[in-house]
Amino acid sequence: MLFVPEDFIRKIVKFPTVLRAVEGAFVALDGGKSKIFEVVRGSGSDPSHFFGIKAALDGSTGSVGVKAGSYHPANLKHGRPSHTSTTLLVNDETAELCAVVEANYLNGLRTSAANAAAAKFLARPDSETLSVIGSGSQALFEMAALTSVLDFKTILVGGRDALKTRTFAKLASTQLKCKVEAVSIEEAARKGDVIALVTSATEPVIETAWISAGTHIAAMGADNVGKQELPEGLITDTLWFVDFPEQAVVIGETQHAFKAGLTSMADLQDATLGALLSGRAKGRTDDRSITVFDSSGTAVQDIAAAAAAFHAYRELPRSNLALDKKKKPSQTCRING
Amino acid sequence: MLFVPEDFIRKIVKFPTVLRAVEGAFVALDGGKSKIFEVVRGSGSDPSHFFGIKAALDGSTGSVGVKAGSYHPANLKHGRPSHTSTTLLVNDETAELCAVVEANYLNGLRTSAANAAAAKFLARPDSETLSVIGSGSQALFEMAALTSVLDFKTILVGGRDALKTRTFAKLASTQLKCKVEAVSIEEAARKGDVIALVTSATEPVIETAWISAGTHIAAMGADNVGKQELPEGLITDTLWFVDFPEQAVVIGETQHAFKAGLTSMADLQDATLGALLSGRAKGRTDDRSITVFDSSGTAVQDIAAAAAAFHAYRELPRSNLALDKKKKPSQTCRING
Repeated sequence: MLFVPEDFIRKIVKFPTVLRAVEGAFVALDGGKSKIFEVVRGSGSDPSHFFGIKAALDGSTGSVGVKAGSYHPANLKHGRPSHTSTTLLVNDETAELCAVVEANYLNGLRTSAANAAAAKFLARPDSETLSVIGSGSQALFEMAALTSVLDFKTILVGGRDALKTRTFAKLASTQLKCKVEAVSIEEAARKGDVIALVTSATEPVIETAWISAGTHIAAMGADNVGKQELPEGLITDTLWFVDFPEQAVVIGETQHAFKAGLTSMADLQDATLGALLSGRAKGRTDDRSITVFDSSGTAVQDIAAAAAAFHAYRELPRSNLALDKKKKPSQTCRING
Repeated sequence: MLFVPEDFIRKIVKFPTVLRAVEGAFVALDGGKSKIFEVVRGSGSDPSHFFGIKAALDGSTGSVGVKAGSYHPANLKHGRPSHTSTTLLVNDETAELCAVVEANYLNGLRTSAANAAAAKFLARPDSETLSVIGSGSQALFEMAALTSVLDFKTILVGGRDALKTRTFAKLASTQLKCKVEAVSIEEAARKGDVIALVTSATEPVIETAWISAGTHIAAMGADNVGKQELPEGLITDTLWFVDFPEQAVVIGETQHAFKAGLTSMADLQDATLGALLSGRAKGRTDDRSITVFDSSGTAVQDIAAAAAAFHAYRELPRSNLALDKKKKPSQTCRING
């Protein structure tokens, strides 16, 4: 068993590696080599400490894996991260525990990797303006990922809270070494050739009238029952793709259109990222279509990303590995005896 | 994060420690301080590589935890263990990953601990004969656990396969340093004051007519949809207890009586191990009743047992910890890059 720590991953694991891994995972899923298990939701004793478990067999890496993730917003008040995730990798053949991978940073990478992969097929190649709506921790990942696959001239960030949005634009400009401009949500939506929705909204944040012909929308906020960023009616006039139909209709953006009877499992069967990557489905075919990718976030992404990190860690010289292991266990970890 | 390895647990963690931890977990569950999440089932690429995930908030230890377990019978052909489990412990308050605990041996201990705890309330104190039916890996744990809480004079093991049963009886005699006799299932059932059912059966292995007045039955085999060891009608004439009603009616022995309408969630609400331990429910009140404990196996047991192992490991001098960390990662762990 190898423990792959967060600090190593932040330093060494780069986006292109995770993008390749995630694309491989979706191809394997499309080829019937993977199985995604049901998502489990729970909470800690504080009901706002949200706990989620995603698990799958990932055929691309030959592993069964589980990601356990906490979202504990109260942590921010205490200077601790709001998101913490850990992924276990078990060998599919031997059932042996291979690795425990800290997956806080990986989680951001694997989510944005799916959106970047989908944008390659669904966004117009001549897309000039990227609009990110939302300014939480995932927004920066999405910006970095989408700018790595498309050659944008303008990057906008739209938010309800003008001050927060300006602060984020400043941070993003520094981090990504390019100009990021803060605007209203409506302006971001109207101007974006690609719109990335990265909010925790439970009702539509943009209106259909604001979306121009030829726009691609990456909707990644909805990852639980009740979450929503787009008007559900949009599905009828767009090329709508999902990561995993069985999950998208329960916890993804698609849940609302599905509940309203505007789409079905049969409609979605070939409208997946895996089908795009394996060539089974066509992506954008003209400059006028509006395209949508509903990213609910799947366990195969977690496993493929964790396996990539595990590989990178394994290839380190032994002497480097020893460094991390000298660390004392954290003092905040108290479990009542 | 501390990794608590299997070899340490096998050497250091003893049954009474796990029994105390498991009893504490059931008291906390009864007191509303814990939440058990839904159980997830899946499989590897070989459909007989069964993969299960149990998770909960455990109020007794202040942790949220996940146990990921493989049951891969084909492993035995290759000299590998058929069961492998790993438990993650996350701090309920800080959401920090505290420990990764190898839980193969712990799994046997935590399961038998629930049965031992229940037997203290449900078996006749003057029980003389223990009959274990089944001779798989869990049978030995159950024998050790039940003989630690009751003073048996005779120990029988009953099985369909006479040779396998005799081989097991020999092994158990050596391991437990007492006489264990191999008999037929019927003889074991007829003679047992306490009957522990430890099979993977999907239909009743004993008949109602074989069970004497005053017997206590620990039914631990049923832990998935379709599994069954007892005639479902037995519930109407017995004092029937469960570990966790919501789970027992889905994957436990109780699923069959529940489906047949012979019991309800309301009936089971006070018929739990937690209610017995906290004094909210009475156990056996006379020498004639037949009592049953349906042990479906809960995540709070996994978490409490793992936390006990984590504590023991933490208290080791640093120098001992370093020993394990020098080990090279296993060579069988290949994840495709």
